[in-house]
Formats: sequence, C-alpha cells, structure tokens
Amino acid sequence: MIAPPSAAAYAAARERLAALAKPLGALGRLEDAAAWVSACQDACPPRPLSRVRLSVLAGDHGISHAGVSAYPREVTGAMVAAMVGGGSGANVLARQHGVAMQVLDLGVDADLDDLPPDVGRHHLRRSSGSIDREDALTLTEVRTALATGEAIAAEEIAAGADLLVLGDLGIGNTTPAAALVAATFGVGAEEVTGRGTGVDDAALAHKTRVIDAALTRTADRVADPVQRLAALGSADLAAGVGFLVAAARAGVPVLLDGIVTVAELGVAEDLEPGVVAWCAAGHRSTEAAQQLALDKLGLVPLLDVGLRLGEGTGALTALPVLRSAVLLLREMALLADLAPGG
Amino acid sequence: MIAPPSAAAYAAARERLAALAKPLGALGRLEDAAAWVSACQDACPPRPLSRVRLSVLAGDHGISHAGVSAYPREVTGAMVAAMVGGGSGANVLARQHGVAMQVLDLGVDADLDDLPPDVGRHHLRRSSGSIDREDALTLTEVRTALATGEAIAAEEIAAGADLLVLGDLGIGNTTPAAALVAATFGVGAEEVTGRGTGVDDAALAHKTRVIDAALTRTADRVADPVQRLAALGSADLAAGVGFLVAAARAGVPVLLDGIVTVAELGVAEDLEPGVVAWCAAGHRSTEAAQQLALDKLGLVPLLDVGLRLGEGTGALTALPVLRSAVLLLREMALLADLAPGG
Repeated sequence: MIAPPSAAAYAAARERLAALAKPLGALGRLEDAAAWVSACQDACPPRPLSRVRLSVLAGDHGISHAGVSAYPREVTGAMVAAMVGGGSGANVLARQHGVAMQVLDLGVDADLDDLPPDVGRHHLRRSSGSIDREDALTLTEVRTALATGEAIAAEEIAAGADLLVLGDLGIGNTTPAAALVAATFGVGAEEVTGRGTGVDDAALAHKTRVIDAALTRTADRVADPVQRLAALGSADLAAGVGFLVAAARAGVPVLLDGIVTVAELGVAEDLEPGVVAWCAAGHRSTEAAQQLALDKLGLVPLLDVGLRLGEGTGALTALPVLRSAVLLLREMALLADLAPGG
Repeated sequence: MIAPPSAAAYAAARERLAALAKPLGALGRLEDAAAWVSACQDACPPRPLSRVRLSVLAGDHGISHAGVSAYPREVTGAMVAAMVGGGSGANVLARQHGVAMQVLDLGVDADLDDLPPDVGRHHLRRSSGSIDREDALTLTEVRTALATGEAIAAEEIAAGADLLVLGDLGIGNTTPAAALVAATFGVGAEEVTGRGTGVDDAALAHKTRVIDAALTRTADRVADPVQRLAALGSADLAAGVGFLVAAARAGVPVLLDGIVTVAELGVAEDLEPGVVAWCAAGHRSTEAAQQLALDKLGLVPLLDVGLRLGEGTGALTALPVLRSAVLLLREMALLADLAPGG
C-alpha cells in the first residue's frame, strides 16, 4: 500500500479555499484540483507546478497486423521521428507550456538508428505477441518492463519534477489498452472497444472480436496484474505501469492522458494499491474504455473536448487548468483582507 | 448585419487540419476552435493569440436590495478595489496567461475616489432601477452605455488585441442577466433563474419571483433590444452589449465568460445580427440561463468545470485551450512530411 497524499494539507487547502475572496465553491472543480495538489505536496498553499516533465512511451503491438488500426505499423517509427524533430502535437503543447519532454522507444518495431541514442536507451524488444492468440510478453519481460518504467520515473524525478505527465505512442495500442481495462474491471469486449485513431464500423466489429478472443484465451489468469500485462499488455504499457507506481511511491503527482495511461493506472492500482490517489485525469477521450476506467477509478477529468491523439496531448491541454487551480489557491486575496465598502 | 469571419480561411484551416500528422479529427473540438480563429483572422495558419486583453465591467443593480444575492451590495466596490490591488481571481489568471486587464466602473454604487481615476473614466451612473418594479435605465442612458461599451472596445483594439475577453463584476448581476436571457429567448423566469453567488432555496424562489415580476411588468416591450436593456439591464450590461457589437464590427474575436457576457451577446445579436460569429464560449457555468443561452446561440463552451465566479475567470481559464488549438494548427508537422518507416 502506497502512502496517500497528506490529509492535513488537503484540509488546510479546503479551509483556505473557503476563506478566499469569492463565494463558497465558486471555483468549482478547480477547488478539488487545487486541494489535491496541496495534499500531494503536503503544503498549503501549494507551490506552482513549474517543473513539469512528459515521457512518451512508444511501442508496437503484435495485434496491429490484425486489422485493428486505421494506420499501418510503420507510422509508429515515423511518429517517433516526428516527435524527435519537434513536429508532433505533444511537442507543440510542451513548448506552449514549458514542459520538458522526451520520447522513449520501449518496443518500436522499426530501425531507429538514425535517431539520437537516448530515444532507444530503454528499448526492451520489438513489438509484442498478438494478444488474440498468444501472450504479449513473457513474465520475465513484464518484470523487466516494470523495472524500466520505474527507472524512467526515477530519472524524471531526479531531474526535478513538480508534476509528471505520461504519454503513449504506437499504432494499435488502444487494443491492448482496452483489453487491459476489460480484464482489470471485469467487463466484456463490447464495453471497452473504441475507434482508436479512427477505424470504420467493420473494423470496429473486428477489433471487438479480437479483444474478445484475447479475453477468452487468457480467462481468469489475468486476475493477477503481472499475468495480465504478460497476457494482454506490451513493453510500453508495462513500463507505463511501472512509471506510475514509482511516481506514486516517490510522492510525485501524475497527470494522466487517454485510454493507454488510464489502462496502465488500472493495472498499477492492482499491483500496488494507492497509486490512483497520486493521479489526476487530464481529459476525457472519445474511447469508451477510458471513460469506463476513469469512472471505476473515481477520477473526473478536467477537460472534455473530444481529443483522441494520445502522446500526452490531452494531459498537456489540461495542464494550464491544473496550474490555474494552484495559482488561484496561492494568490487570490482572502475575504478578510477586502476593504469594507470599496 | 455584421460581416462574418472569412469562409475561405475557415476552409483552408479545415484542409490544413486534415493534412496534419494525426488521425482525421483527432483534435476534437480544438479543430473547430482553430478553424474559427483562422476565419476571424482571415489567415491560415492563424497567428498565435499573443495579445489578449480583458475588460471587467463593474456595476451595481437596483434589484440587489431585493434579497436576490448572498452578498450585500457593498461587496461590489470592495471587489473593484481588490481587482485594482491584483488580488482577484481574474488578476491571478491574467498574470498566468499574460493578459492585459482592466476593471472599469460603469455603475458601481460606491465612492471609489481612492482608486486610480482610470477605473471611473467610463462611469455612467450609480446602480440601476429595481427591475421588478421600474426600468433599469432610461432609453438615453442605454444609448450612452452602448456607445461607452463601443468606446471601451475601440480603446482595447487600438492598444493591440488578437483576442478580447469580457468580464463582469457586480453583486446582483445574475438577476438582470437572467431576465435578459428570458426576454431574448422568450422563456419563463423558472428556466433562467440560478443561484448566482450561492443563494439558498428560499432566496432562489424569491429571485425567480423577482425575475417573473420584471418580465410581467415589461411584457412585449422587450422585443426591441434597446427597450430590453432599458427595462431589464443596467449600465454595465448595456456597455457589455456595445463592447461586443464594436468588437465584431472591427473583426476582433471575443472569448465569452459566464451568464452576464452570454446574456449581453443575446442582446447584441438582436441589435446587430452577426455578432455571435465573432464570439467563442470559454466555459459552461453553473447558471441555467447561461447554458440555455449558449444552446440558443449555437455555442459550445471549451471548458465545463463548474466555475461561477464571473470577472472573466471562466474565459481566462479556457484561454490556454484556445491558444493550444491555434498552435497545433500552426506548428504540427504535415502527414506528407513524415519520414516513411521511421
């Protein structure tokens, strides 16, 4: 069990919010967000979220040969290169918000030798098993990926982070993510399957059958979170789980993105209860599995603008809203300081 | 009829959005927002929204003696002073986002001589008539207030503005705003009355009766937008209407805040059709009248986090999301530029 954020700082934040020069509750859900940051920092008022770092974990997926995506597998490597070049959506938003970002190849199925060696320093394997008919990873690979994710989080925290953001990149990754959500929360394939990057009705039906086959194949074995990652995950997804666990253990809050990071959180919470208390939901994506998992985890996203790009873009779009919550709690005048009558 | 934003730039923006290195439509409603800014600027890609200016129009309301607010009238002047001192929620967010802001006393019922003279340079009168039993303003006062609002917008535009934000400040102001929404869209008092700064059930019922009395008193006369402002408005609300009309005429886009600015837009659109095309909705507030008016005007807000502070805070909280939309359209790589295979 991971130690929770500070209840005392949370209470102090609620008290200060009630004392600000505004009607009670007038900041709506920004008040909840501000109190959460206070609790995570064990400080009221909280420090500004100045140092924010995004890690985008990239990987390919065996299942992407099975017609579950609107794009071919080759796009993963091309998008990693675009991200290194600064042209991805995540790059644009990271620049806007002063976020330090990196993209890491955990399991990309392409030769990325032209890219800076840092990108591949945590590479674990190429792609993963096709989960409809075989396990994605061995148990040993899962344990290595979890440890790798923990190491990535530790590097980020050592570099100085008030908040971590986790993003994903990889053609086909909404399929294992949806399967993990189904297995974590015990629901059927039809409840978690979404259109990902934009598959049509026929491909959506096929994707549902593929996820159903994966769930049927693995059956009750997936009750264990490590087995679940082996059966249905991938190198990048298992690393994401390790990343979240390590951040929570270190007491560094995380802003979540879309279906992939929320699926990772579901597994992380089973692996080590208490992780979810250190996470906030950035946005509601268009994927049914993400909405389902957020509800099950008790998280309410800050934004709901129909984003479905991944890469951490939903979290980065929501970041200034979370920062606003913190700044309002820090900087607004108190009711007691108002001059009577102007 | 005010000339609409550029259809050609809108189409060019849609075309560029489809060509970006991302799945079709993956930026969700940010794509709509980006295309709107392109259209307003008649430029694709659009320029960043660097120069943003907020005007908070402050005023008191005769009706605030009638028990429609959780706070006494004296709070208006105190909040104007807090805003001059930099301690309001709007100040905090304006600093966060590099927004130039001013607060202007249009109709505050307090002696503000201790404040810088700029604050009172557009003062029109103290408070307004109590709309349940008398008109808020004379027709002459409405025309002066409209012209004053137009002059304020012109000053802001002359100072250099890629985007204008309109905010409100004044105890009791959700009552005339709700009455204006009811009169503009032809609905009853019970459909538009909300809790404002936080009245209880008894006060809410009383506020509904007050608005109903105002609507009954003024009857069909309010079909005319100038008569409507005289019957149900106030100096600050009428100035807000003039502000919006002038911004739209000048082709400068406006980001709206809560019920007061949306009520102003409803009147502005009747006064000079075409204003709404130059406006975007920042956030959905908790006021029923704001939701109703946004739906009637065909606007979908960027944020929905339960804010109900006024002052432009909802718009400012949404501003970075609108800026993100513009930057993504400007700076993301094109699909055609992706290296094949990584």
